Parts: sequence; structure tokens; C-alpha cells
Amino acid sequence: MKVSFVGIGLMNGSLSLDLQQMYPDVVLEGISRKEATLDRALELGLIHQKGNIDDLQDADWVFVSIPVEAIANQLPKILDVVGEQTLVVDFGSTKSAICEAVKNHPKRQQFLAAHPIAGTEYSGPDAAIPNLYKNKTIMLCETAKTHPELLVRAKNLFAQLEMHVREMNPIAHDKHIAYVSHLSHITSFMLGKTVLEKETDEQNIFDMAGSGFASTVRLAKSSPEMWMPIFAQNKQNVLETLEEYILNMNEFKEKLAANAHEELLAEMKNINRIKTILEHK
Amino acid sequence: MKVSFVGIGLMNGSLSLDLQQMYPDVVLEGISRKEATLDRALELGLIHQKGNIDDLQDADWVFVSIPVEAIANQLPKILDVVGEQTLVVDFGSTKSAICEAVKNHPKRQQFLAAHPIAGTEYSGPDAAIPNLYKNKTIMLCETAKTHPELLVRAKNLFAQLEMHVREMNPIAHDKHIAYVSHLSHITSFMLGKTVLEKETDEQNIFDMAGSGFASTVRLAKSSPEMWMPIFAQNKQNVLETLEEYILNMNEFKEKLAANAHEELLAEMKNINRIKTILEHK
Repeated sequence: MKVSFVGIGLMNGSLSLDLQQMYPDVVLEGISRKEATLDRALELGLIHQKGNIDDLQDADWVFVSIPVEAIANQLPKILDVVGEQTLVVDFGSTKSAICEAVKNHPKRQQFLAAHPIAGTEYSGPDAAIPNLYKNKTIMLCETAKTHPELLVRAKNLFAQLEMHVREMNPIAHDKHIAYVSHLSHITSFMLGKTVLEKETDEQNIFDMAGSGFASTVRLAKSSPEMWMPIFAQNKQNVLETLEEYILNMNEFKEKLAANAHEELLAEMKNINRIKTILEHK
Repeated sequence: MKVSFVGIGLMNGSLSLDLQQMYPDVVLEGISRKEATLDRALELGLIHQKGNIDDLQDADWVFVSIPVEAIANQLPKILDVVGEQTLVVDFGSTKSAICEAVKNHPKRQQFLAAHPIAGTEYSGPDAAIPNLYKNKTIMLCETAKTHPELLVRAKNLFAQLEMHVREMNPIAHDKHIAYVSHLSHITSFMLGKTVLEKETDEQNIFDMAGSGFASTVRLAKSSPEMWMPIFAQNKQNVLETLEEYILNMNEFKEKLAANAHEELLAEMKNINRIKTILEHK
């Protein structure tokens, strides 16, 4: 079995570690614009060899985990050159523009649009960890457009990784994911910004920031190169979430200014039910 | 040694577990408006007996960990009745109004204003955990107003708990803590609210919310009864942080709407340095 990774950072690197456990004989090839990334991936044992985007004829799998605008750009070129047995899977956090980019491609059936709900705030090959995907959800879009045999092959792999498959159309995916993922990245970045702007004496952040702040600002450590294209590609949905969130923030501010304590208390108690929802997971 | 806990939830309950390790003979007394809380604390072994707020003459320590407006209300009454050897310590997340409430009290010297930068999003006696305070910072305010011998006694205890003591005036404390703690609680609550309002099908939150969302929304599980009084008591500072944060959110939204991707990318890269600051801790 030969697997080609287009991009070899957190997502494909972690997948590599799991694949090596499951298939000791697998041949792993890495493709990246950055030579240093490939060298590091070789050093870490995430790939066996460097590959080339024009040379994917004999790959059984091509996993594409690069910034989402690059996925949309590269996917048609990748499909152009793959062999008949190749299944191309993307792991982008947006799905509409990516599905759109290949909708008329003659090899559309050899592509599967996927989004594993898994990750950490770290990036690059050094961020790769085993079992990143275990017990996580993977969203699949437009599965009817993937060749049935290839779809089965993919679902079997996801089952081996102990992932939970959920299917959804790309429009709905991008709308929902804006709320439960894209928005929280922006609120974290802006929290980090507000504190950094104000706390010019960083000693105060060291000393006074507890685990609560660290948790809330964690996503502000995320890779801007990965996230800026996601916000751009999912612009309309993200703008909508921002609008609603800012409205809520303004409302909280106005109520606090007006000493509407009972109202805020009731509201916070209601929001507490996020606890039940998250712990149900 | 006799210790009286006014309030016996996460903070005092966790302290109880550590004190029992350090002083096996300590006598622990709990005081609460809620009988059920005291019963549960007895069951959990966090206290040995129920106490009364009028009966603190023979306590060596009184730790006051209740909502901050109740601390400001109760502290003068507590100081009224304590004996000559009693040191009263409060663990409130705000310090100005609390210091103000006792500034002219004849027993002001028997009070120490403290804020341990420690906690979890859980509350009540069941939330008590050992070593909550280990390696955490404790902010002390107006230490010159505490009797020097009692201050030494307190600092020795904090050293035994392996805490790092930092002193700051109450005004500065409340200003800084609004940024690194109070603001992040509000951003979490409003993130929870925005998602709950939109995602009426809770299955989508279960399935599509990853660890990043869980981390960012974690503080929205916090006790409204504890946090509403904090926001109210630190109103001016909190309103200031909200104003700056909302400005930043609006600016992000406008730039995204205007496709100012390079600008946003540069900004996010700059915010990434929160990583170095937090990991330095």
C-alpha cells in the first residue's frame, strides 16, 4: 500500500503514525512546498520518501491536508495525475469551495471530501501525535459523488481509526462548523489581542493568568497560515457568527452597565447547560 | 488548630483536603447558608462539624470563600466576633470593594485580602480536589494593614501549600484581573450563548464540536452565583475590557468583510506570541 501525503504537518503526520501501526508495510510519501518540512518529516519517521505532485499514479491514497485555499487550487491538478486505483481525500475545515473546485472534474469519483473533527493548537510535523483520530467524528460530504468501492475503502479505514462517520452536505457543514469551530478560533485570537494590547507588562499575564484564561485563549496559538484561509473561504458564514456573537457581547455589556444583574444571572444559568451537552460527548 | 470555613465549595473544600494532609489534628468547621452544602461537606470529610458565624472566637483561621458581594457584607460581622488570635482570609476574585468594606474596622489587622489564582469551572463541595493550590500564584493586597505576625503566619501556610506570593494594591489587582480572568469568563459565556441560540439541533454540537471549542467554552460552565457578583463588583474595569474586546471583534469582522487577508494574517501572527507567554508560566 502506498500513501501520499500532500502536506505533512499535524493532520497527515498524525495519520502517518496510526497507519504505520496498522500497516507495517505501508510506503509513505510526503509532498510539500517546503523542503525543510519534508526533511523534518523524514527525520521524525512520518514519511519514507519525498514525492512529487506530478507523480501520484501508483498511490492508493492521497491525503490532502494543507491550507483550504491551497486544497481548492491543488485538488484538480492532483486528480489530473492520479491512477485508476487512487482515492484522494482532503481534510480541510471547509467543504463547499473544495467540493465546488472539483465538481466537474472527470475523476470526481476518485475524490472524497472529509473533515475530521480532530486537532490541537499546534502545527507542523513536530505536532504529529498517535491516536489523534481515535473516537473523533469525521464529517463526509457528497459521498454519493465518490465511487462506491472507494467510499467503502475509506469508511473501512475510518472504522479502523475508530472514528465516527457523519455525513452532511457541504453547505450545512460550513454553516454549522462556523459556529462550533471557526467562531471560537476568532474569539480566542481577539481575547489574546485584547490582553496583549493592555498588559504591556507581561509579568502580570504570567502571574495573574490562571488555567481558565489559558484554556480560553488556547486557540490563539493556532497557525494563522491554516486559519486565515478558512475564515476567508467560509467568509459569509463566519461573518454571520461574528455578527451574532458581537450582538450578544454588546447586550451583556449594556445589561452590566445598567446593573441588570438578575437578568444576566438567569442568562448565565441558561448558558450553563452547555455543560450537559459537552459532557455528553 | 481550628479552621473555620465560611463557604465550603471548590475553594475552601480543596484547601481542607490540603490542610488535613499537612495537619492531621486540625479541627475543621464549616459555615454555610445552605444546610445541604454542609451535610455534603460532612459526608465528603471536608469538615468535621457545622459552625455558626457568631461563634468564631476560638478559630485560628477563618477562610471566607463565598460570592464577592457576600464577602464584603459578611466580613465586618466576622471580624466583630473573632478572637484575638484569629486571622481572617478572604479568597475573593475582586479586592477593592472587599478591602473598602473593612478599612475602618477596629480589627482590620486581623484580616488579610487574598486571591489565589486557582480554580476549575466546577463549584460546590463535590468540586474539591487536593493540590488545587500547588504551584499557583496567590495575590495579596494591603499586606501592611495586616498584623505582621499574622501576615507571617499566612505566608508560611502559603509556602507550605507551595504557592507563589505576589503583592499588589487592590485597585491594580482588580484592573489586571479583569483582563486575564473576568473578560475570558464573559467571552466563554457569550460563545456558549451564541452557539446554543443557533444550534437548536444539539446533535450538531455533540458531533461537530471538537476539543478546541470545548476548551474555549469551558468557563461557560462556571457558577453564575459566583461570577455575576464579580462582574458587578468590578463593573468599571470589566466594562472597559468589554469595550476594547468588542472593538477588536468589530475590527476583525470589518477586515474580513473587506478581504484584508494580509492584514489579518499579520495580526494573528502577532497574537501567536501569547504562546510564548503562556508556556513560560
